[in-house]
Amino acid sequence: MSSRGNLRSAKADNLVVPKAAVGRLSLYLRQLECEQKDGTATVSSRRLGESLGFSDAQVRKDLGYFGQFGHAGVGYRVAELIETIRGILGTDREWPVALVGIGNLGRALLGYRGFRRQGFRIRAVFDLDPKKVGQSIEGIRVESPESIVARVTDLDIAFGIIAVPADAAQHVAERLVAGGVRGILSFAPVSLALPNDVSLVQVDLAIQLESLCFRVRGGRRAGES
Amino acid sequence: MSSRGNLRSAKADNLVVPKAAVGRLSLYLRQLECEQKDGTATVSSRRLGESLGFSDAQVRKDLGYFGQFGHAGVGYRVAELIETIRGILGTDREWPVALVGIGNLGRALLGYRGFRRQGFRIRAVFDLDPKKVGQSIEGIRVESPESIVARVTDLDIAFGIIAVPADAAQHVAERLVAGGVRGILSFAPVSLALPNDVSLVQVDLAIQLESLCFRVRGGRRAGES
Repeated sequence: MSSRGNLRSAKADNLVVPKAAVGRLSLYLRQLECEQKDGTATVSSRRLGESLGFSDAQVRKDLGYFGQFGHAGVGYRVAELIETIRGILGTDREWPVALVGIGNLGRALLGYRGFRRQGFRIRAVFDLDPKKVGQSIEGIRVESPESIVARVTDLDIAFGIIAVPADAAQHVAERLVAGGVRGILSFAPVSLALPNDVSLVQVDLAIQLESLCFRVRGGRRAGES
Repeated sequence: MSSRGNLRSAKADNLVVPKAAVGRLSLYLRQLECEQKDGTATVSSRRLGESLGFSDAQVRKDLGYFGQFGHAGVGYRVAELIETIRGILGTDREWPVALVGIGNLGRALLGYRGFRRQGFRIRAVFDLDPKKVGQSIEGIRVESPESIVARVTDLDIAFGIIAVPADAAQHVAERLVAGGVRGILSFAPVSLALPNDVSLVQVDLAIQLESLCFRVRGGRRAGES
């Protein structure tokens, strides 16, 4: 059976995949893209896990949620596995994205090459500040938040990034959802109430520093040496 | 036994705590800070978990790694649990932080109130661009990377944030480590080779969008309804 065939059947079964495994898929993808850049054609699960600090068993288990992609005596074919993981994540196509808030963080996100590399292209930018509306930043014209619903609908945008202050975030989220957005990445430090069928990922950069602080002070985590 | 007493004994045992539980501690802390702001004195594990989407059993299990902090018939005392979690994470004191790279992302991080609220204070800022060196941004004078080792040593800085392009990141990391930094938060999209006793958290914002993409397209995660 081809890997594509397995992938489809895994999806049809509504497979439950742990959140951490999905995050690791992205890390495997980054590593495979490096290997491809270096001209590597095939890679073992041990090698794939090694530079990321995961065991070969972990790699095989994570990929195993989606099918059987290795080839006996060969390992994984790099180009094939890249295509497969992109298919699993849904980044084998380009996704238009709306960004709301073009302060320092918004500008950093607009210039962030990692989004584009993984298939996310910021196609519409909104800001409340009338001085910014009409300006062109990184080749995109900043629009008023009044236009969110119409523009998001027109451009068939599925993902919104919120980089506005906390007190504006809920209102912005509701406009994005009204325009048809199904997933929101929010940098606003506030809880958002969203319909059940809209997915939300909140980025709290202080959590990353807190986690680092815990480790530096000698806290142990399961699975770490 | 007081909660402080339990906390100490948990640490003395070199307790192994799952990475995800440490991340959830930060979320509980945010929620408790909200409750405190609203004037709430005590909170149940059910209520603490509810707004975050975790079960009461999950809350009790996560906090249970560090001791027994609930009070029969009362639940958790909000102010006490805030203090305890800050003690566990190590954010019950102020930590000076060095930031390297003051482009759009660096400026956003410098203005990010969430760091300061959780005890992280950016005390030194470095940038390669001679036009930026000597400027004052958010009240901090930008210095040349030449000064990293001396300044980090002088200010006894334990944490460094790297917001420079990929090709400069390894060199910057080495200077930070030479100055005595023990934890690095890196936004540079590149692997960093660091001594074993230095902790590294790499922030890859595209992973958050990929994870959102997986969910929006119907991928399931364990524990989600």
